[in-house]
Amino acid sequence: MKDPKLKRYDKDFEYSYAFGTYPTIDLLKSKPEKVLKVLLKQEGFGSEGVNEIVALCEEKGIKYEVNDRVIDKLSVKENTYSIGVFEKYECEIDKNSNHIVLDQPRNMGNIGTIIRTMVGFGFKDLILIKPAADIFDPTIVRSAMGALFSINFKYYDSIEGYSNEFPLHNKYLFMLNGAKNIEEVPFKSPYALVFGTESAGLSDEYAKLGESVYIKHEKDIDSLNLSVAVGIALYKSSLNKL
Amino acid sequence: MKDPKLKRYDKDFEYSYAFGTYPTIDLLKSKPEKVLKVLLKQEGFGSEGVNEIVALCEEKGIKYEVNDRVIDKLSVKENTYSIGVFEKYECEIDKNSNHIVLDQPRNMGNIGTIIRTMVGFGFKDLILIKPAADIFDPTIVRSAMGALFSINFKYYDSIEGYSNEFPLHNKYLFMLNGAKNIEEVPFKSPYALVFGTESAGLSDEYAKLGESVYIKHEKDIDSLNLSVAVGIALYKSSLNKL
Repeated sequence: MKDPKLKRYDKDFEYSYAFGTYPTIDLLKSKPEKVLKVLLKQEGFGSEGVNEIVALCEEKGIKYEVNDRVIDKLSVKENTYSIGVFEKYECEIDKNSNHIVLDQPRNMGNIGTIIRTMVGFGFKDLILIKPAADIFDPTIVRSAMGALFSINFKYYDSIEGYSNEFPLHNKYLFMLNGAKNIEEVPFKSPYALVFGTESAGLSDEYAKLGESVYIKHEKDIDSLNLSVAVGIALYKSSLNKL
Repeated sequence: MKDPKLKRYDKDFEYSYAFGTYPTIDLLKSKPEKVLKVLLKQEGFGSEGVNEIVALCEEKGIKYEVNDRVIDKLSVKENTYSIGVFEKYECEIDKNSNHIVLDQPRNMGNIGTIIRTMVGFGFKDLILIKPAADIFDPTIVRSAMGALFSINFKYYDSIEGYSNEFPLHNKYLFMLNGAKNIEEVPFKSPYALVFGTESAGLSDEYAKLGESVYIKHEKDIDSLNLSVAVGIALYKSSLNKL
């Protein structure tokens, strides 16, 4: 891919940005072959993080340049010392591992937080059912805090399309009116944990795909926040894994 | 309080806003005595939510008015059909209940999500150690999705100030290098769960205030997102409550 003239991110770009020092370091460590270049700000030199970026770039033969003007133009937050510019990529889902499935996720902050939580609890494979947010949007990259570069992800047009491709995965469907309390569920590997949208959850018909599960909470709230519900589910299932 | 000329929210105001139909309904149900008035948009009439607002206002003798222009001026999101204008208030912390303590929280989305999660798991008392975000900021009100109006909260200048006032509460301090895995902790009521900032967590010296606890996760991430960590802790402690 040729050196692109860098503009504010648009989902139709063939490349995206990792803003900030530690996301850039994670990018350089996990996906060095996708890095087009790294931009650095003059005032960041001498900091531990920027020193590590320079060392990684030199070790891996990746171009870096000081360019305060372009960083200021592209950044949405102040005090960005570094931007990793990377070519978008596709992944294959590991058929032997446990999966996380998000049905039509839209809130980018939630998706980023979920990716970070996945990596925290040892999950590496994420399925997104369309329509879904653009996983390379810098908002997701930032809220995942670098964790995006160490997972596999794949978009599917429908939950049935995914389910047909991975028929051996035990599907656990998180629903407000699920049949089993998560405390009583032994999660049998390989499995997939499936979550609906923040606004509507999973509709009842999804229950036929596997076992429906609920996280008990008071009726004073309609539902838990999606990233909190996913966090509790990943934590519990990684403890109760068979 | 006299009828204020409504402007974009500022933390020095004596009043704040609940944007959206369901947060306004929760406000009218939980804190009717604090509501100054309710603004409605013409196009919302006929919807179930706005009908409920009108009925609640009439029942409780609260002023409501159709004012599209002011709603458009004050709203940050599109499609806001309703704004509840309310006078700010102070609360007393219940000395017999279990508490959540956030040390110097700043991220408003996280604070709102934590409030919603608290109510979901039956916690009603929130302590904020300064410096901390303004709990009446509409961003927090919105992300709490109405749950703000059913909790008690109070600011303290220091954790010691709080701790001295509630010496009988068993303090559980969530730290990356905590002494005990949360799975092995029986939470003895009355207790307080204490969490540090998103960026730095709780410093080691806090451990002397009680029992330090960790949530086990992979080293591939620095930490869990604060609202996810709190979510797991509230869920677990409400199950393991003694």
